[in-house]
Amino acid sequence: MKKKAPNKLKILNDPIYGFIQIPNSLIFDIIEHPYFQRLRRISQMGLSNLVYPGANHTRFHHALGCIHLMQKAIRVLRFKQVEISKDEENGLLIAILLHDIGHGAFSHALEHSIVDNISHEEISLKFMKKLNKEFDNKLSLAIEIFEGKYHRKFLCQLISSQLDIDRLDYLRRDSFYTGVTEGNISSDRLIAMMNVKNDELVIEQKGIYSVEKFLIARRLMYWQVYLHKTGLVAENMLVNVLKRAKELANKGEELFATKPLKYFLYNQINEENFSDETLKMFSKLDDYDILSAIKEWIHHPDKVLSLLSEMIINRKLFRIEIQKEEISKEKQEKKKTKFLEKINISEKEVNYFVFTQKISNQAYSLEKPIFILNKKGKLIDISKASDQLNLQALTKPVIKHIFCYPK
Amino acid sequence: MKKKAPNKLKILNDPIYGFIQIPNSLIFDIIEHPYFQRLRRISQMGLSNLVYPGANHTRFHHALGCIHLMQKAIRVLRFKQVEISKDEENGLLIAILLHDIGHGAFSHALEHSIVDNISHEEISLKFMKKLNKEFDNKLSLAIEIFEGKYHRKFLCQLISSQLDIDRLDYLRRDSFYTGVTEGNISSDRLIAMMNVKNDELVIEQKGIYSVEKFLIARRLMYWQVYLHKTGLVAENMLVNVLKRAKELANKGEELFATKPLKYFLYNQINEENFSDETLKMFSKLDDYDILSAIKEWIHHPDKVLSLLSEMIINRKLFRIEIQKEEISKEKQEKKKTKFLEKINISEKEVNYFVFTQKISNQAYSLEKPIFILNKKGKLIDISKASDQLNLQALTKPVIKHIFCYPK
Amino acid sequence: MKKKAPNKLKILNDPIYGFIQIPNSLIFDIIEHPYFQRLRRISQMGLSNLVYPGANHTRFHHALGCIHLMQKAIRVLRFKQVEISKDEENGLLIAILLHDIGHGAFSHALEHSIVDNISHEEISLKFMKKLNKEFDNKLSLAIEIFEGKYHRKFLCQLISSQLDIDRLDYLRRDSFYTGVTEGNISSDRLIAMMNVKNDELVIEQKGIYSVEKFLIARRLMYWQVYLHKTGLVAENMLVNVLKRAKELANKGEELFATKPLKYFLYNQINEENFSDETLKMFSKLDDYDILSAIKEWIHHPDKVLSLLSEMIINRKLFRIEIQKEEISKEKQEKKKTKFLEKINISEKEVNYFVFTQKISNQAYSLEKPIFILNKKGKLIDISKASDQLNLQALTKPVIKHIFCYPK
Amino acid sequence: MKKKAPNKLKILNDPIYGFIQIPNSLIFDIIEHPYFQRLRRISQMGLSNLVYPGANHTRFHHALGCIHLMQKAIRVLRFKQVEISKDEENGLLIAILLHDIGHGAFSHALEHSIVDNISHEEISLKFMKKLNKEFDNKLSLAIEIFEGKYHRKFLCQLISSQLDIDRLDYLRRDSFYTGVTEGNISSDRLIAMMNVKNDELVIEQKGIYSVEKFLIARRLMYWQVYLHKTGLVAENMLVNVLKRAKELANKGEELFATKPLKYFLYNQINEENFSDETLKMFSKLDDYDILSAIKEWIHHPDKVLSLLSEMIINRKLFRIEIQKEEISKEKQEKKKTKFLEKINISEKEVNYFVFTQKISNQAYSLEKPIFILNKKGKLIDISKASDQLNLQALTKPVIKHIFCYPK
Repeated sequence: MKKKAPNKLKILNDPIYGFIQIPNSLIFDIIEHPYFQRLRRISQMGLSNLVYPGANHTRFHHALGCIHLMQKAIRVLRFKQVEISKDEENGLLIAILLHDIGHGAFSHALEHSIVDNISHEEISLKFMKKLNKEFDNKLSLAIEIFEGKYHRKFLCQLISSQLDIDRLDYLRRDSFYTGVTEGNISSDRLIAMMNVKNDELVIEQKGIYSVEKFLIARRLMYWQVYLHKTGLVAENMLVNVLKRAKELANKGEELFATKPLKYFLYNQINEENFSDETLKMFSKLDDYDILSAIKEWIHHPDKVLSLLSEMIINRKLFRIEIQKEEISKEKQEKKKTKFLEKINISEKEVNYFVFTQKISNQAYSLEKPIFILNKKGKLIDISKASDQLNLQALTKPVIKHIFCYPK
Repeated sequence: MKKKAPNKLKILNDPIYGFIQIPNSLIFDIIEHPYFQRLRRISQMGLSNLVYPGANHTRFHHALGCIHLMQKAIRVLRFKQVEISKDEENGLLIAILLHDIGHGAFSHALEHSIVDNISHEEISLKFMKKLNKEFDNKLSLAIEIFEGKYHRKFLCQLISSQLDIDRLDYLRRDSFYTGVTEGNISSDRLIAMMNVKNDELVIEQKGIYSVEKFLIARRLMYWQVYLHKTGLVAENMLVNVLKRAKELANKGEELFATKPLKYFLYNQINEENFSDETLKMFSKLDDYDILSAIKEWIHHPDKVLSLLSEMIINRKLFRIEIQKEEISKEKQEKKKTKFLEKINISEKEVNYFVFTQKISNQAYSLEKPIFILNKKGKLIDISKASDQLNLQALTKPVIKHIFCYPK
Repeated sequence: MKKKAPNKLKILNDPIYGFIQIPNSLIFDIIEHPYFQRLRRISQMGLSNLVYPGANHTRFHHALGCIHLMQKAIRVLRFKQVEISKDEENGLLIAILLHDIGHGAFSHALEHSIVDNISHEEISLKFMKKLNKEFDNKLSLAIEIFEGKYHRKFLCQLISSQLDIDRLDYLRRDSFYTGVTEGNISSDRLIAMMNVKNDELVIEQKGIYSVEKFLIARRLMYWQVYLHKTGLVAENMLVNVLKRAKELANKGEELFATKPLKYFLYNQINEENFSDETLKMFSKLDDYDILSAIKEWIHHPDKVLSLLSEMIINRKLFRIEIQKEEISKEKQEKKKTKFLEKINISEKEVNYFVFTQKISNQAYSLEKPIFILNKKGKLIDISKASDQLNLQALTKPVIKHIFCYPK
Repeated sequence: MKKKAPNKLKILNDPIYGFIQIPNSLIFDIIEHPYFQRLRRISQMGLSNLVYPGANHTRFHHALGCIHLMQKAIRVLRFKQVEISKDEENGLLIAILLHDIGHGAFSHALEHSIVDNISHEEISLKFMKKLNKEFDNKLSLAIEIFEGKYHRKFLCQLISSQLDIDRLDYLRRDSFYTGVTEGNISSDRLIAMMNVKNDELVIEQKGIYSVEKFLIARRLMYWQVYLHKTGLVAENMLVNVLKRAKELANKGEELFATKPLKYFLYNQINEENFSDETLKMFSKLDDYDILSAIKEWIHHPDKVLSLLSEMIINRKLFRIEIQKEEISKEKQEKKKTKFLEKINISEKEVNYFVFTQKISNQAYSLEKPIFILNKKGKLIDISKASDQLNLQALTKPVIKHIFCYPK
C-alpha cells in the first residue's frame, strides 16, 4: 500500500476496478490497524480454491472494493440531488469497510465449529465498537448505520439489503476470481440506476433488466460456486476436523496449535462469555492458524483427526451426492457399516466421515424487497415489476440434501 | 477440480484463459499428487500482496497456466509442420507443469534463509526424479527436457529460455493479479509467432514488436512489481526473521514451529546432506508453516525475533531508500546508533533492522539470445533486429542499492 | 488480413477471442471473394449504434467469430469421442461462415422494405449455391448441412438451433461491442459442455446453469438492446424512408441512388423473379448505398422523403411509447391530426410519421428444445431440467406494442 | 443516446470504460448538433479495418471517451489541490470534445487529396467558432484553450501535448478495437499520476515506468497498426482514387457523387477560399459519400478510376515493399514497364498504380517534453529521467520507404 501522505492520492491497484482510492486519512488509519490487516490473511471464499484455483482473494480486498463502489454510489446519488452530508459519507464508507471485519478464519467454517452461535455480524460490531474507542468516537455514525438504526433508511440499505454494496462487490469479485464469468454482474450499471424515493434505496425503471440479471447471476453463483459440491465437501470436512479437535481438547488431549487457536479449542466461547480478551484472541486468529494446525494434526495419534486432516491437505475429498429428497437412513447406515469395516473407529466417530446436510438458497426474499421506481414515480417490488420472468418463483427457497462419505 | 473421468473433458476455470484443459490422465494423476497439491499453499509472489492486494495467486495456478500455453504452442508449431511426437508432447507438458515444484514457501525468501545455497531448480529436479519412480519412469523424457539434455534443443527452450512458456504465463498472470496492466503481454500473439529453424525456437519477423514489447513489459514488471520498494522491504524482513529464528535454534532455544519448519530450523541443510528425508520434509513445508510461526513468535522473549515478527504481521514495515550509489558507512552507522538508542539490543543484532542490499536486473541477456526469423530465413538476435529501440541498452544490468531501517 | 501463404498461420486479431485462425486455403479464398468482402460494409446491428455508440461491428467479423467458435466446438466434440470427418469439419466451417451472407444492408430494415418477403436465409442459400459453382462443388456438404438435410442431425444443429454457434457468437459479440456486459455469455463454457447423444447436440448436466444463464442473457439482450426503444424508432424510420423512396420510384420520380440501390427501388423483386442478375445486384448493395442516398434525399422535393431522411441522419428521432396493450385508434388519430396541423402532407402520408408496431420475443421455444444430458444418460428438455427457475414462463411470447410519432 | 433530462444521469455505454457520463446539458446539446453527429459516420481509423476487422469505431465514440477521461483528470488534479474553476472545467470538456470535429471522411486520406493543405485542426477551429455563435459564446473559453492561448498552460497541455487526453483515449481505444493488446496503455494510471507544477502538466516520479510504457506502446501502435503495410497500401489507393476523380472532374467529366462530394471534387478548395458554404458542405461529407461513390466508380469508363475503385472495394490491394533506403528509380521503372505491358494506360497514369512514399515516425519529441516531477520537486524531461532505457533513441525519427505496385 502507498504511504500515507497528505495531498497525495492514495491509490491501490485492483484487477477489477483498476484503481481504488483511499478517500481520507481516517480511513487510511483504520486500514492500517492490525484488526483490519488481519483480513489480509482470511480468504474470501474459504476452501473454494480447491475447486476454483483462482479464488484466493481475501476479505481485505473485498472490503477495499466495497469502499470503491460506495464512493461511486455516493457520487451518483448526489448527482441526482440526493443530499448526503460529509459526515454521512464518511459513515457509509467506514460502515462498508468494516462490515465483514468479524469474519473468522475460513469464514463460515469457523462459525459452525469453534465459535458456535455467534454470527460474524455480531463480532463485526464488537470490533467496530472497540475501534470507535481507539479513534475518539469517530466511528459512531458508521456504527449507527451498520446497525440499521440511523434515521435515514436508504443509507442503511446501502450497507445491508438485497442490493447492497456488499453484494455488488462480492458477486463481481467472486465471479472474477473464480473465472465463472456467467456470475458477472454490472455493478457500475446497477449503481448508475440507483436513486432514493421516500427514503428507500430504489432502482430506476430502465434498470429493471439489470436487477433481473443480478438476481439470476446471484442464484447461479450460489449453485455453481458457493454451493458447489466439491466446495461443500471440503467445508464440511473442515468443520468436522475442527469439531474433532475441540472434542479432543475438551478431553484434555494435547493438540498442536497457535495460541489463539488453542484459546478457542480449549475454551467454550459463547455469546455470554465473549470478553475483551476473546475479541483480542479472535483478532489474532486467521487461515494460517487453522491450516498449519491441520497440517500438523496429520501426525496426531487420534485416527479421526489425522485422517480428516490428511484428506483435506492432500485434497482426497469424500464422495458427495446431492438430491432433492432427504437421504434415507438405510443408505446412510450402509455407508457407515462399509466404512467401519475398513477402519477401526467407533460408531459415533463414523459420523465424522459419513454425514448429510440440508442446504438451501433463496434467490429473492419478499421481506425487504428491491424496489423499482417506475416512470410515474411509484415504487414496485421487482418481483411484480418484471413483465415475464417469473421472479416470484425465485422467492421459494430451494432445498437440497447432500450426502458425504469416503470413497 | 473436476473428477477424473475417462472420455470427459477435465477442465478448470481460469480468470485469465477462461478454461484450462487437463490433457490426459497421467498429468491428472501428477496434479493430484501431494507434492503438486502443496503448490496450492505457496504464493506465486511471496509478500507482494502487501503492496498489491490482488496478488494472492499460487504456484499451483501458474503451473496449470503453463500447461495451457504449452498446449497452444504445440498446436501452433505442428500447424507450421514442426514435428513433435506424442511422447515429446507429453514430456513438454510434464516438464513445464513441474518446473517450479521445488519452490519453497514464500519462494525466494526461503532460499536465502533456511535452505541456503540450493536453488529451487535443483529441488524441482529432485521432486521430478522421485515422481518418476512412483510413476514407472513415465517422466524420464520430461526430465531430460527439463535438464536441457534432450537432443532437440527447441523443446528445451520452450521450458527454459528468455522467451519460454514459464515467462509467458507468469508475466501475464502477475500483471493480471496485481492489476499492473502495463506489464501485460500478449502471450497468445507471441506463441502464434513461434517457429523452429535450425532446431532453434524462433519468432517470426512480424512478431518483432511483440518481442520488444515483451522485453519492455518484463523490465517494467521488475522495477514496478518484483523489485517494488515495499515488497523488497517485506521480503528482507521475512528473510531476517527466519535467519534470526535459525540463529536461536542453533543456540538450542525453543521455538514454536510445525514439524517440517522445525526440521529446517534445527538442521543445517546443504546440498551434500539433502536426503530423501529432507525432500519429504520439504514437501510438507509451505507458506502456512512460515506465517503461523511468525505470528506466534510475536510473543517470543527474544526481542529481535518478536519485533520483526510483529512488524511483518501488522505491516509496520521499515523505511526504505533506493539509490544508484552504494550506501555510505556513515549513513548506516548513524541509523544504527539512532536505533540502538531506542531499543536494548546488541550491536550485532542491529543488523537485523538496519541493512543494505544490492539489487540488479538485466532486461535482456546476449548469452542465449531471442532469435528473429527474418524473411530471408536468417536468424537474427532481437537486439540487432530491432530498428530503432536501443535494445542493447537493455543488456546492461541495472544495479541499485537499497537501505532499510526502522521508522 | 494476412497474406495467403501455405505453412503459415493465417490469423486475424479479434478483440473478443484474441486471435482467429483461418483454418485452410479454401476458406481463405471464400473470405477473399467479393461476395464475402461485402459483409465488411454491413453493420451487424443496423442502426443500434445510435443507441450504443460502440456497436459498429460488421457481419464480416461475426462470421469470422463463428469460424473460431466452430473450431473449438469440433475440438471439444472430438475429444469426447464424437466422430467428425475431415469433410464434415470443412462443411461445418463453411456453413457457419456463410450462414449470414444473404443479409441485406442494415440487415432487417431492408427485408421489410425493398426486398420484401424474401428472408436472408433464402438469399444466403442462393449465394452459397453460386459460390459452389465457382469453387468446383466444394461447398456441397456445407449446403446440405445449412439446409438441415444432412443425415447427421447434430451437425445441422451446430448451424441452426436454439443453442447454435451463430447465437454463441452474436450474443457475446453484441454484448461486447454495445458494452451491455450483462448480456455476456460464456460461449467457451457452453461449448465445453457440448456433447452428442442419439445424434442430438446436447449439453451435459453440469452445464445446466450456463444454459439458464444463456437464455436469460439472450432475453435481456432482446429487451435491452435489440428491441431498445430508440433502436426500434430508428429502424422503423429507416424502413419508412425506404418505402417512401420505393413509392416515389414507382411513380417514376427521380431519386439519387447508386446503381444497385436503383435496381431494387425501381424493380419489384419477389421470390419468383429473383434472378442471377438480382443476386449480382444484391451482392453490390450495402450500408453505404443506403446511407449515402438518405443523406442526399434530405434535399429531395418530396417532403415526406426529405423530412424522414433529415431526421435519421441528424438523429432527431420520433418519440416512442411502448405498452402491453394495443394502441387505441383515438390516440393514434389525435397524434396524426396534431402532426397534420404542423405540416402540409396528405392523410395517407401521415402514416409515415405516426404509426404503431407489434413486437414480440419468445425467449425459449419448446419446438426444438435444448436438451440436457443427465447423469443417467437421459435427454431432458432444459425447461424441465431446471429445478426452480420457471423456464417454462420463457416459452410464452412476450408481445408489446410501440407507438411512434414526431416530437 | 439517452434522452435529455434534467437531474437525470445521462450515461452512455462504452465497452472500454463501462459508462460515459454526459456532464451537463450544454455539452449534451453540442453532442446533439448535426456537426457533431456527423462524427458517427467517420471511422476513427480509416481503412484499417481491412487489416483489423474489429476497428470500426468512430470519431464520435473517441470524442466521448475523451470527455470521460477529462472528467477523471479534473477530479484527480482537484484532489491534489490544483484549482480548476467551474468555467475552466467546462472549457476543458468542450475543447476535448471538439478537438477532432474537423476530421474529414476517412480522416487523413481526405486531407491529402481533395481538401489539400488544410489541416483538420484548422477546420476543427472553424467548426468551434461557428458553434460558438450558435451557442451564445459559451464556447469562448474552450476555443482559447484549444488554440493554446489560455494563460494557464497546463490546461492547454491537457488538450494538446505529448501526453494529452486525446492520446490517452485513442491509443487505448485503437488498441482495444484492433485487438492489438500490446498497444494497451493504462490511461487510468497515467491520469492518477498527473499533477501540476509551475503551471506545467507533469507526471509524478512513481509514474515514470508508466510513461516509458506509454511511449513504447505508442511506438508499437505506429509500426504495427497505424503504419501497417496493408493499411498503408489501402490508404494510398484511397488517396489515389480521389485524386484521379478530382483530375477527371477538372476536365469536366461526369462523376457519380453526392452533392457535398461533388462540391469538393469540382471546386479547388484552399485556405483562402474556405467559406461558410465550404464549411457547411464539409459538415455533410463523411465516409458514406466517399465509399458509395467509389463503389459506383467501378463502372466508370475511365480505366484508372474504375480499376482502383474495384481494387479497394474488393480488397485486391497492391503489393507493398518497405525498406530503410529509398526505392531506386530502376526498380520503379521496371514495375511501371511491366504494368504498362498489361494495361492500356498512359505513362503518367501508371503513377497511380506504381508509387513510393516516405513514412516516418518520431516516438518522442524533445521540443515539448513530458516532465517528471521528482521527489525533490524538480521537473525532469522523461528522456533524462529514465534510468536505463535509452529513451533518447526514441527522439530520432524513423524513416522508411514504401513501394507499392500491382500484383
